[in-house]
Amino acid sequence: MSEKELQLDVAEVGERILGRWADIRRHTRKVVIENQLFKPEGAPMDQHREWVLKSLKTLVRENATQYGFPKELGGQSNPGGSLSSFEELVFGDASLQIKFGVQWGLFGSAILYLGTDYHHKTFLPGATTLETPGAFAMTETGHGSDVASIGTTATYDPATKEFVIHTPDRHSYKDYLGNAALHGEAAVVFAQLYTNGEHHGVHAFFVPIRKNGKLLPGVGAEDDGLKGGLNGIDNGRLFFNQVRIPRLNLLNRYADVQEDGTYTSSIDSPGRRFFTQLGALVQGRVSLTGAVTNAQKLALDIAVRYSLARRQFAGKDGSEVTLLDYQRHQRRLLPLIARTYAQIFTHQELLNQFHTVFSGENDTEETRSDLETVSAASKALSTWYALDTIQECREACGGQGFMAQHRLTGLRADLDVYVTFEGDNNVMLQLVAKRLLTDYAKAFKSPDFGTLAQYVAGQVGETAINRGGLRGLAQSITDFGSTARAVGYVKDEEHQHQLLTDRVHTMVASIANKLKAAGSDKDKQAELFNRYQNDLINAARAHAELIMWEAFTSALKTIKDGDSIKILTWLRDLYGFTLLEENLSWYLINGRLSGARAEAITEYIDSRLLPRLRPHAENLVDAFLLPPELVRTTLAQDERERQLNRQTLVRN
Amino acid sequence: MSEKELQLDVAEVGERILGRWADIRRHTRKVVIENQLFKPEGAPMDQHREWVLKSLKTLVRENATQYGFPKELGGQSNPGGSLSSFEELVFGDASLQIKFGVQWGLFGSAILYLGTDYHHKTFLPGATTLETPGAFAMTETGHGSDVASIGTTATYDPATKEFVIHTPDRHSYKDYLGNAALHGEAAVVFAQLYTNGEHHGVHAFFVPIRKNGKLLPGVGAEDDGLKGGLNGIDNGRLFFNQVRIPRLNLLNRYADVQEDGTYTSSIDSPGRRFFTQLGALVQGRVSLTGAVTNAQKLALDIAVRYSLARRQFAGKDGSEVTLLDYQRHQRRLLPLIARTYAQIFTHQELLNQFHTVFSGENDTEETRSDLETVSAASKALSTWYALDTIQECREACGGQGFMAQHRLTGLRADLDVYVTFEGDNNVMLQLVAKRLLTDYAKAFKSPDFGTLAQYVAGQVGETAINRGGLRGLAQSITDFGSTARAVGYVKDEEHQHQLLTDRVHTMVASIANKLKAAGSDKDKQAELFNRYQNDLINAARAHAELIMWEAFTSALKTIKDGDSIKILTWLRDLYGFTLLEENLSWYLINGRLSGARAEAITEYIDSRLLPRLRPHAENLVDAFLLPPELVRTTLAQDERERQLNRQTLVRN
Repeated sequence: MSEKELQLDVAEVGERILGRWADIRRHTRKVVIENQLFKPEGAPMDQHREWVLKSLKTLVRENATQYGFPKELGGQSNPGGSLSSFEELVFGDASLQIKFGVQWGLFGSAILYLGTDYHHKTFLPGATTLETPGAFAMTETGHGSDVASIGTTATYDPATKEFVIHTPDRHSYKDYLGNAALHGEAAVVFAQLYTNGEHHGVHAFFVPIRKNGKLLPGVGAEDDGLKGGLNGIDNGRLFFNQVRIPRLNLLNRYADVQEDGTYTSSIDSPGRRFFTQLGALVQGRVSLTGAVTNAQKLALDIAVRYSLARRQFAGKDGSEVTLLDYQRHQRRLLPLIARTYAQIFTHQELLNQFHTVFSGENDTEETRSDLETVSAASKALSTWYALDTIQECREACGGQGFMAQHRLTGLRADLDVYVTFEGDNNVMLQLVAKRLLTDYAKAFKSPDFGTLAQYVAGQVGETAINRGGLRGLAQSITDFGSTARAVGYVKDEEHQHQLLTDRVHTMVASIANKLKAAGSDKDKQAELFNRYQNDLINAARAHAELIMWEAFTSALKTIKDGDSIKILTWLRDLYGFTLLEENLSWYLINGRLSGARAEAITEYIDSRLLPRLRPHAENLVDAFLLPPELVRTTLAQDERERQLNRQTLVRN
Repeated sequence: MSEKELQLDVAEVGERILGRWADIRRHTRKVVIENQLFKPEGAPMDQHREWVLKSLKTLVRENATQYGFPKELGGQSNPGGSLSSFEELVFGDASLQIKFGVQWGLFGSAILYLGTDYHHKTFLPGATTLETPGAFAMTETGHGSDVASIGTTATYDPATKEFVIHTPDRHSYKDYLGNAALHGEAAVVFAQLYTNGEHHGVHAFFVPIRKNGKLLPGVGAEDDGLKGGLNGIDNGRLFFNQVRIPRLNLLNRYADVQEDGTYTSSIDSPGRRFFTQLGALVQGRVSLTGAVTNAQKLALDIAVRYSLARRQFAGKDGSEVTLLDYQRHQRRLLPLIARTYAQIFTHQELLNQFHTVFSGENDTEETRSDLETVSAASKALSTWYALDTIQECREACGGQGFMAQHRLTGLRADLDVYVTFEGDNNVMLQLVAKRLLTDYAKAFKSPDFGTLAQYVAGQVGETAINRGGLRGLAQSITDFGSTARAVGYVKDEEHQHQLLTDRVHTMVASIANKLKAAGSDKDKQAELFNRYQNDLINAARAHAELIMWEAFTSALKTIKDGDSIKILTWLRDLYGFTLLEENLSWYLINGRLSGARAEAITEYIDSRLLPRLRPHAENLVDAFLLPPELVRTTLAQDERERQLNRQTLVRN
């Protein structure tokens, strides 16, 4: 059977892409379509905000918001399902999605995960039903990524058994909070806890802020106003002038203050206590990864179909050439399809991992820590990839891509801020890099080969993603530097894996080695850390890319249809080869690839992978299973119709 | 004198950056500020459109629009000055800028450059005064980049001495035209000319379309509606149902039709005639390059000042670290400053070149052809760079960067379409590549060394940019492949130049060699051309980068202040080293750099260039000479004030 006759099994691959919570995803899509929960493009900010609030109520009514909450509140205690529903909303309106995230992913989840029975009974019902729209008041104008340094204080007053919430200065205003400017009736406020004259670090408090739309005494609010996107959300600032709340409003799952002001905590280390309380935030990282990946599906669905309908410039037979038959156009779009598939499968692994931890199935310090690292890596790369992908799709549609009705520009504008959500992506990657260094320090005591291989295996194992690919690494690692065996060497799955793994390891080892020079001198450590900050972030990035390649490779093993396996293996190879191509200089400098092999990589992409995948481009986006009512642009169809109705014109 | 004590001469460098038409630029900035011609962020589309039209009238009244037109119409016959004024408008509102471009750069210029005396007297006054707002009706829905294939026809009827303008089908609607949806009273329409039963290709016609706001008989118009940006412009579609215009409305500078229908032209070749008539479009490429470079100045002004005010995370002494002291932040912003300087100087050369041709000082087929190539290369790279730069600046400002009031998101949204203006950037680069191949074919008959060096010199010479850098190339080219002399080798200006030049040449030669295999087989040629399309575009890109490096290097020689020369030389080195770093694998594969030298490049950027330039970052943006009234965001200043008013908080 020749390559062109292969056929992707759209149904099977589509179902695999929809994943474990396919039913929930289908339901949310149905709700979006039936209720026309589509972004009102061009609506003034005020109208868009009211539309989003109304649409959130529709989602409540249609049972698309409760999955993550306890059964007694009408939920399913299904953390993975909850995020799945959230992720699908990007097909309707990103503002709707993020306001959903504010209400249930942040405000509601903080009550659920940081509070105890009292809070669940008292505050959760209002949160789940949207009777109490709520803000998640963590970020301050002066402190975005550095939450430990926030300025808001919560001082316990034993005389009245109350906490006094106070904003000391403009720097410490809570900022960028959805629901703060208009709709919020309460907020989970993060503040430095003081009791009996002692400071105990950041804790979360339930603070009422409005009643019937009017601010409560001592509470101030400002509107952030117009933004680059997501204008359906009423982001704003909150500040507190000696606002008193009952002692019981401390969300006390991990720490409490007794009536007399005595502080107690189940976690001794203040550092660990801080990070444990912030742990609930990990669902933001996980679900943003899924959300942007969905947005990429939408963008690629639009751009690929257009590239198959649109023709431009006469080809060798005189008739105009279909865009996707241009090599450059293939180079623009096909690797983006490959990377999107890699992101999809990575996110599925991540979402499973999240569900396992947050459902309590396997909730340990280690699984939480792994989840935090992998989600930070995935969130950073995926949100950047999403902007790149949507932009390339918009450019690939030319002037049509700039028309708001074709959705690409609005999608990009809305998703722009996803790259700074949850902290700057560079800060995220630095967290990943620190973890890589810590693991390295633990594992790599003596520089013998066994430890090294073990470290690499451990590194990858930590991702909780397929470990199978690493079999035989120790044995074959000695092959590096041997003479070229043409591109066949790189095509081999095991070798692709080795090349990617080895790069991460070597980068980390090299940086660790440079940092060692500081010894125990703290100043020198800080200086060297900054000196190699860029390298560190690059190493974290390489780690994230490896995770994605592994997830794609694991997924291949779950596909049954033979043709689909072949086609998706080419697609995985395209992803892997593109990664190698992007980092080719590293492989050359470090002697991992000869010049001949390096050149063969680009040659192989251009002469083999692109032509092989070209006939399957349409099926590859078909497998996203996006119905036209969800995509809502007839760009490609209109183009085809216009061409059918053309007169034959004499050419000069 | 230690490096930190060096000081950039902001006044001198600032004046150099403002360039040849500084007075005109200053005047336009003054007009923008005094009349508050600033984008009404968040205004509904209809209001924004009316505001832009009103603002255009203000510009006419303030004499900021006439520079390019003849003296008898109140102009100065100053093409370079005209573009300079246009370029500055991006500081006010990109919609205002582009509608200026539609009216005077496209509609008015088409009358000026494609018309003759009759048209100048009859139609130009209305165009220059804005009494006749006009559309430039070239692009069709079905044909963006491929103008030669448009479907609109202009058939001469000798009985009435009229042309009949007709739109055969929906595919051939004129589309995306500013002034088409609402304000346009006339249009320059590009159509396939037929007379006496013969087809003569694309020509331009002056066609009235509205009177007192009402469409004339036979003329149809549709509104393109909301776009991803530039919503102050009434883009729309125009179509014609047998619309009759006088024979004299053919803009007949290059071709004419006599009363009896006889076709005459001063240019015999239909192909050359077509490209000559499209030649006026080159000013779009030139001025867009300048416009986006200005936008980058604005974005960098905002982000760099913020990075110097904002502090985050405690450093080694416990106080918070200024953002720009983080290596990663330096890596994000400093190379963008360097590249922006390179773009500024490149654009100045280009604008001079444009002025020389369009003022008639040196208007030959060769100078026009060079101008077209260099402007295509510069436009493609600069518009992409602008989006990258603005986005990085927005991310570097974190959540604040997403607030519309700080301008970055709006700027990016508006500039998005600049990358597909004048044709897809990839198509632009392909034009450049074709020119490189043509020159190669001409020069490179025998593969001896002399011809090769001559070709390289010619290639660079064609850019009409400094040729001095090429002295000695032939002598030293034999040094390639010699053993490492550490980074000193690459630091040398001559060697940087060699490395960049050699890459362009070798890429072009290699592709030419591969294409040769087709012989004279047309099908095979088309097939191979497509097979190496991506390589071709990469070669064109490398050529454009070389041009930019050369322009920066030439500019260094015009600076008088010694400190400034040193600082700007580091900046040029940062630009050059970043280029080499991005393309390192090519240099390694092709044996131009050893692994040791390749590694030294990154090392040198991180350990030398970034730390050296860090103290001068503020002065480097000061030299953009943007007054606060033009920048209109107090982001950095507010941040500093908030910090001054902070209480000292106890840290955990």
